[in-house]
Amino acid sequence: MPKVFVNIGLTLDGYMAPEGMAIEHWKTPEYKNWGAKWGALMGWVIGLEYFRQNLGFGPGGETGPVNDMIRHTTERIGANIMGKRMFEQGAASWPENAPFHTPVFVLTHEKREPWVRPGGTTFYFVNDGPQSALEQARAAAGNRDIRISGGANVVQQYLNMGVVEELEIALAPVLFGGGRRLFENVPETVPAFRIESVLHTPAATHLRYVRQ
Amino acid sequence: MPKVFVNIGLTLDGYMAPEGMAIEHWKTPEYKNWGAKWGALMGWVIGLEYFRQNLGFGPGGETGPVNDMIRHTTERIGANIMGKRMFEQGAASWPENAPFHTPVFVLTHEKREPWVRPGGTTFYFVNDGPQSALEQARAAAGNRDIRISGGANVVQQYLNMGVVEELEIALAPVLFGGGRRLFENVPETVPAFRIESVLHTPAATHLRYVRQ
Repeated sequence: MPKVFVNIGLTLDGYMAPEGMAIEHWKTPEYKNWGAKWGALMGWVIGLEYFRQNLGFGPGGETGPVNDMIRHTTERIGANIMGKRMFEQGAASWPENAPFHTPVFVLTHEKREPWVRPGGTTFYFVNDGPQSALEQARAAAGNRDIRISGGANVVQQYLNMGVVEELEIALAPVLFGGGRRLFENVPETVPAFRIESVLHTPAATHLRYVRQ
Repeated sequence: MPKVFVNIGLTLDGYMAPEGMAIEHWKTPEYKNWGAKWGALMGWVIGLEYFRQNLGFGPGGETGPVNDMIRHTTERIGANIMGKRMFEQGAASWPENAPFHTPVFVLTHEKREPWVRPGGTTFYFVNDGPQSALEQARAAAGNRDIRISGGANVVQQYLNMGVVEELEIALAPVLFGGGRRLFENVPETVPAFRIESVLHTPAATHLRYVRQ
């Protein structure tokens, strides 16, 4: 059965997205300086060979254990689940060849036909809640896994449902001072995790937790 | 000149103390289950040989790199700074031979004479603010360093003053779902940190950040 996992960049002060990173400011990254903040949080991924390849940035890039990790994480994904806001922000910026190459289940209240993109990404719009999206993702993922992609409130919903089996955090040594917290509205009653591995680099500490 | 550092246990969801851990519940650890939570957060320290020694629990205990780290951290402290609430909670539970063995500067509005404890701990009560406490701690620390001991709001005050040079976090794989957050009211304008080292154990990931 597919595993459900979260793989997310997090600031030292617990934010997964800076303040002001909203669709209405997508074209104005200088708003509240969110572009620079996002870069500080996710800078470790930009130069990786696999990431560049996957986004069609061309050859070259950093190799090594973090690159291997990202390749492994990406290749294990059989389906993605994301929120409406993340989808809308992404749709405004992803290349036509969207960077998922799997079915993507978008939680929304909108009714919309599936949106097929070149390169293997199809967006399905789910109107009947996160449990339904999860079932559809399970059916679609085959023998690969399901990534809860974001945003924060979608991750929190699945954490609260108790279905997240692995939690991978790239903890960057930056402070945002505000923004979207990963852990908010998550009660203590969610299943406990244990730390399984740590991969340490100057740009981020890659923490991998699995459910106890 | 003494360095100012913070050394703190933190949950995965960003809390340094559970909800309900307040002086009025000090004698009722079952209140909101805070005793068990505190144990889950700080369990890694309890069995260490140095920690046991330092609290007079007698011989024996775990040795190894975490024990060495705690010994090194403790021995570098020439003065502590703490908030009134932490002092009051501690005063109700520390042994007579209080576990600091240095001058301790308590931020308070109360006027009170220094309180000398056996074993080298003297509590000084500072009425004129965190800058004054820091100056007094600098004068007292000699060629050793100054630890900002807590609670959360005291750590935040010193982070915001931009004087914290090292931030040591023992990140435990537990979720509190509520409590005192370490990073709250800390704006992005605080000096940036870089990660210097990581010591990984199943009970906690020891992250050491130094100011850039």
